[in-house]
Amino acid sequence: MKAVRLHAYGRRPILEEVADPKITGPHDVIVRIGGAGLCRTDLHIIEGQWKEKSQVRLPYTLGHENAGWVHAMGPAVEHVVVGDTVIVHPLITCGFCRHCRSGDDMHCNHGAFPGIDADGGFAEFLKTGARAVVKLGPKIQPRDVAALADAGLTAYHAVKKAIPLLYPGTHAVVIGGGGGLGHIGIQSLKALTSANVIVVDKSEGALQLAKKCGADHTVLANGSQVAKVKEITGGPGCEAVIDFVGEGGAIADGIGMLRRAGTYYVIGYGGTIAAPAIDMISQEINFVGNLVGTYNDLSELMTLAAQQRVKLETRVYPLSAFNDAMNDLDGGKLHGRGIFVP
Amino acid sequence: MKAVRLHAYGRRPILEEVADPKITGPHDVIVRIGGAGLCRTDLHIIEGQWKEKSQVRLPYTLGHENAGWVHAMGPAVEHVVVGDTVIVHPLITCGFCRHCRSGDDMHCNHGAFPGIDADGGFAEFLKTGARAVVKLGPKIQPRDVAALADAGLTAYHAVKKAIPLLYPGTHAVVIGGGGGLGHIGIQSLKALTSANVIVVDKSEGALQLAKKCGADHTVLANGSQVAKVKEITGGPGCEAVIDFVGEGGAIADGIGMLRRAGTYYVIGYGGTIAAPAIDMISQEINFVGNLVGTYNDLSELMTLAAQQRVKLETRVYPLSAFNDAMNDLDGGKLHGRGIFVP
Amino acid sequence: MKAVRLHAYGRRPILEEVADPKITGPHDVIVRIGGAGLCRTDLHIIEGQWKEKSQVRLPYTLGHENAGWVHAMGPAVEHVVVGDTVIVHPLITCGFCRHCRSGDDMHCNHGAFPGIDADGGFAEFLKTGARAVVKLGPKIQPRDVAALADAGLTAYHAVKKAIPLLYPGTHAVVIGGGGGLGHIGIQSLKALTSANVIVVDKSEGALQLAKKCGADHTVLANGSQVAKVKEITGGPGCEAVIDFVGEGGAIADGIGMLRRAGTYYVIGYGGTIAAPAIDMISQEINFVGNLVGTYNDLSELMTLAAQQRVKLETRVYPLSAFNDAMNDLDGGKLHGRGIFVP
Amino acid sequence: MKAVRLHAYGRRPILEEVADPKITGPHDVIVRIGGAGLCRTDLHIIEGQWKEKSQVRLPYTLGHENAGWVHAMGPAVEHVVVGDTVIVHPLITCGFCRHCRSGDDMHCNHGAFPGIDADGGFAEFLKTGARAVVKLGPKIQPRDVAALADAGLTAYHAVKKAIPLLYPGTHAVVIGGGGGLGHIGIQSLKALTSANVIVVDKSEGALQLAKKCGADHTVLANGSQVAKVKEITGGPGCEAVIDFVGEGGAIADGIGMLRRAGTYYVIGYGGTIAAPAIDMISQEINFVGNLVGTYNDLSELMTLAAQQRVKLETRVYPLSAFNDAMNDLDGGKLHGRGIFVP
Repeated sequence: MKAVRLHAYGRRPILEEVADPKITGPHDVIVRIGGAGLCRTDLHIIEGQWKEKSQVRLPYTLGHENAGWVHAMGPAVEHVVVGDTVIVHPLITCGFCRHCRSGDDMHCNHGAFPGIDADGGFAEFLKTGARAVVKLGPKIQPRDVAALADAGLTAYHAVKKAIPLLYPGTHAVVIGGGGGLGHIGIQSLKALTSANVIVVDKSEGALQLAKKCGADHTVLANGSQVAKVKEITGGPGCEAVIDFVGEGGAIADGIGMLRRAGTYYVIGYGGTIAAPAIDMISQEINFVGNLVGTYNDLSELMTLAAQQRVKLETRVYPLSAFNDAMNDLDGGKLHGRGIFVP
Repeated sequence: MKAVRLHAYGRRPILEEVADPKITGPHDVIVRIGGAGLCRTDLHIIEGQWKEKSQVRLPYTLGHENAGWVHAMGPAVEHVVVGDTVIVHPLITCGFCRHCRSGDDMHCNHGAFPGIDADGGFAEFLKTGARAVVKLGPKIQPRDVAALADAGLTAYHAVKKAIPLLYPGTHAVVIGGGGGLGHIGIQSLKALTSANVIVVDKSEGALQLAKKCGADHTVLANGSQVAKVKEITGGPGCEAVIDFVGEGGAIADGIGMLRRAGTYYVIGYGGTIAAPAIDMISQEINFVGNLVGTYNDLSELMTLAAQQRVKLETRVYPLSAFNDAMNDLDGGKLHGRGIFVP
Repeated sequence: MKAVRLHAYGRRPILEEVADPKITGPHDVIVRIGGAGLCRTDLHIIEGQWKEKSQVRLPYTLGHENAGWVHAMGPAVEHVVVGDTVIVHPLITCGFCRHCRSGDDMHCNHGAFPGIDADGGFAEFLKTGARAVVKLGPKIQPRDVAALADAGLTAYHAVKKAIPLLYPGTHAVVIGGGGGLGHIGIQSLKALTSANVIVVDKSEGALQLAKKCGADHTVLANGSQVAKVKEITGGPGCEAVIDFVGEGGAIADGIGMLRRAGTYYVIGYGGTIAAPAIDMISQEINFVGNLVGTYNDLSELMTLAAQQRVKLETRVYPLSAFNDAMNDLDGGKLHGRGIFVP
Repeated sequence: MKAVRLHAYGRRPILEEVADPKITGPHDVIVRIGGAGLCRTDLHIIEGQWKEKSQVRLPYTLGHENAGWVHAMGPAVEHVVVGDTVIVHPLITCGFCRHCRSGDDMHCNHGAFPGIDADGGFAEFLKTGARAVVKLGPKIQPRDVAALADAGLTAYHAVKKAIPLLYPGTHAVVIGGGGGLGHIGIQSLKALTSANVIVVDKSEGALQLAKKCGADHTVLANGSQVAKVKEITGGPGCEAVIDFVGEGGAIADGIGMLRRAGTYYVIGYGGTIAAPAIDMISQEINFVGNLVGTYNDLSELMTLAAQQRVKLETRVYPLSAFNDAMNDLDGGKLHGRGIFVP
């Protein structure tokens, strides 16, 4: 089959022919890819940011946001049949460790993360596990939902943690709210909470998408954003910051926007979360990391998608045009989410 | 009355004669001090660390850990009578803002913090508010419990937040567990949870106190502490770090001791909490600030004290010996907590 | 002033002239009534259902859903001024007991409940406490919101407890959803959760109001309601029942509509909640009582009202027409909520 | 193999020879029984109380509290090996439904409950599923822990739900605290919470066992038990009742012991939980059903057992003496828990 594979850090991957994946274990599932999302993490992987963490052996196939149809499966798989439309939870999990037994799939003691530390979905077929596939209705097009598998899931997962903070009259700030993850975050906030949603972005176009997604307030990141957010909240700042940028000045800005006892949800990465301990204690603020989400989170998000309460902005590329897509993403020309179709 | 007052940052305070406080508002309460705890924060105040945050006008009286007897009160105070033994919650609160109405006294929109931004209890009398006094049994000696008002309360409050993480078989690491706050943290962990308690400290004497307080494991901070903690946990690290040091290498160590999805409770301060966002998301870890605690927390802690499940190690000084006590604390010669008696 | 007072159980109250209330304590607040809601509980009080519980001494003034303007106040009241528009939380609370300090105003150890066990608001003036008044914007008409003070608050409070159960794809059943409380319950569910809302009522008119309020499904209680609800949920039943009827067959129906691990929220009363213990354990279901709500709940609900996300259906009566209003309510002719204006 | 099988409701089961169970599915596990607990539910099954609910086809083998050693397993089982000592979670679960994915094993959409609706462990071998076996240390004797698999698990699960209510100074009442489940409940309360534990039982011998297990107060159920419990709590009643009896006057007593906003945990069954809705709302009390517990609960309980913080009182019978054991249990002569050894 054809696959987009990374051969060396610092250089773009290559589209090449590789062997089709094969069923080797009783819980294996092979998915014929219908759509695979392009994520900023793919660019970070190419840059080498994940080299130490993933310990993946090159070359390997990128792509961690996948949806398609069940193509083949091991003898112990019973909850799907060949031909089912599925979205693929990003982790292959064991089902037997404490984390799996608690529903915290993303912390499986024996997990694999195709596209990060194993062959991913920028290809015609993906090998995953029985516990990763979420069955969808037959009318759903994989390309329309693929990017919910990781980007959407992460946004949803963070918003779900924030629910108890976000009662009527509170304010949630979404930093980088007009990007591929951010616009799912806005829609999730509107679906799950009654908070006022303030979106901060440095692009006017992104803020327009944010408004379309339901933002109550939009703030251009032009230097006055911290003051503007405080003003919108009537002075004290917001109860929750959900940061999809996680680098540059965004972090210090976000901390500045929090009110006492507020919580900062980290999703974007690249920079360093840094706060003097005296500020953390005198304000009693919190920082919460977010890693994709649970299988049940993904299932709930697919319900919101089926109800049209969460809609993805996408742009479809043939897999062979992966370089164009990466250029568009890197150059800020890709609003919403890029999707590869084999 | 006599009071220990700070006249200039960078210089020790002075014991001097000042006017007795007077009842001016309907909810005022004046407490005759029976004991006032000396805290590392007092040294930090003198150094000027709190200058910007507190905006207090010098000179003023230090002392934010107070207990004694009700001496006088305003006409609207009904739940205590003159002569009652009381411990004093660190904040004077309004009772009407959202935070007060939620029980989050420490975030009162109109709060004052005697000893930090108003005259404190290193004196014969302290002026506080009706909402701050917790009535105690008549046999309790204020000097025996005074340091629970802030140091103990902060430790208890952080431990209480950690309860859901600390089911049987989990591990909580207490960094700086042999100090004035740390030994209350250990006892609170043992009283409220079934976790294994690992105490890390750089002093052998402190570790001995930790053992006496119920620590299951003690680890000397001699360079191998991260590895030792991981070993005790069987590899992955601990579910919760409770850091009473908050400076120097303690922070990086503490982060290194956390397992996936673990939480770091910040109590000690002086340093900077810093973590690459990619680490926070790939491990999905959290940082939680802690600021004293609620009035109900203090009341619960007094129950544990009455049940002898939390005992303070103290050393009593006459108020006039405040300089000796500060020297002892600064020089690491004060194990447990220094208490001033007027 | 004029007041509607109950002189004997089993007989309608009387409109008569009584002395105006006076400020006697430092925290007293006297509210000039702008609107007072009529509640089924008023009929229950007249019938004698509350006689034992309230121990109120007759005669006394009914009316526990009150809004108006601050008319006078004691010397220790600082957070409102004369002339402020306010809605009145149903309880006068002490502010110092454990429950008040936790925000659980409705369980105050020293609480009074005007209209239940003290003189209420079917009058020109109401005496309450400083802790009971929620300040509103000057444009809000008390008559438009008065019924949120108890009926709306109870509905909101129960819905808020149910939030963690009601993730996307779940179902909440509102029994008696078209009545005075029920239609607030529906709107609160839509504002706070992403659940599918199924409304069950025996009146077609009530179901029409339910649809207008946002119900996703309506089911006529004509004998097939349990089967219909199960069908809508795809078989297993719903995660939450919110029962505003609480008598007759509604209770057994509601239990029958619950899925495994589901929770039944009791609001309406009159009947007996009864379930064989073997059913409770083999299904692991729960029953949750609901008593008005906290001050903060009321404040949040007023935010939803100001945002037009919760709207009351009301019918205004002059206080002198209280008998007509009671007849209308008793005879099922009053849709929405009856409001008295002095 | 030998097995104790029920042939008709209302008559004692029979010890007879049946075929050994065989591996037929990829996730099957066959456990060689080392100990199987006798539970009051076994008597209830014989009486026919579970006939409708379980729909089991007679004859079948009783026994739902099992521990032993892995004897054989299907080809997809990887987390245990033949010879491992294991305790058996009471349910065989699918691992793929929403409940399994949340960790709520006891609500699996496709679960089987050996000993209730499938062949159980009063035999030499038990067939269960890969997801049911909890691996134990090699030194643990199955007979010493078997009764924790269901009785202990249920007690632990209920106590765990009650943790947030049971802060220092609160009171938990254990009704029937001296029985087979109750004494695990007491020990779990002492291990997981700081509450005062009050045990109510009608047998003096049971109260002595309760004291040995750590009860802070014991109350003989001789008619004055409600008044005595209220007195111990200083008047208002307790925050939590954990009822291991669930029939006769115990239920009304338990409700009478609750304070405002208290919660009643139902474990024992036989009677009917009944409360006027007006009592539930005016006191805002709750009833919580409890069905065994999660796999992780069982794993945590095994940690407490390994730490000697939970110890089972047992009496061992050879499987052939099953009738004697049932007579002892029925006649109130069996303190602690009866264990069958094949």
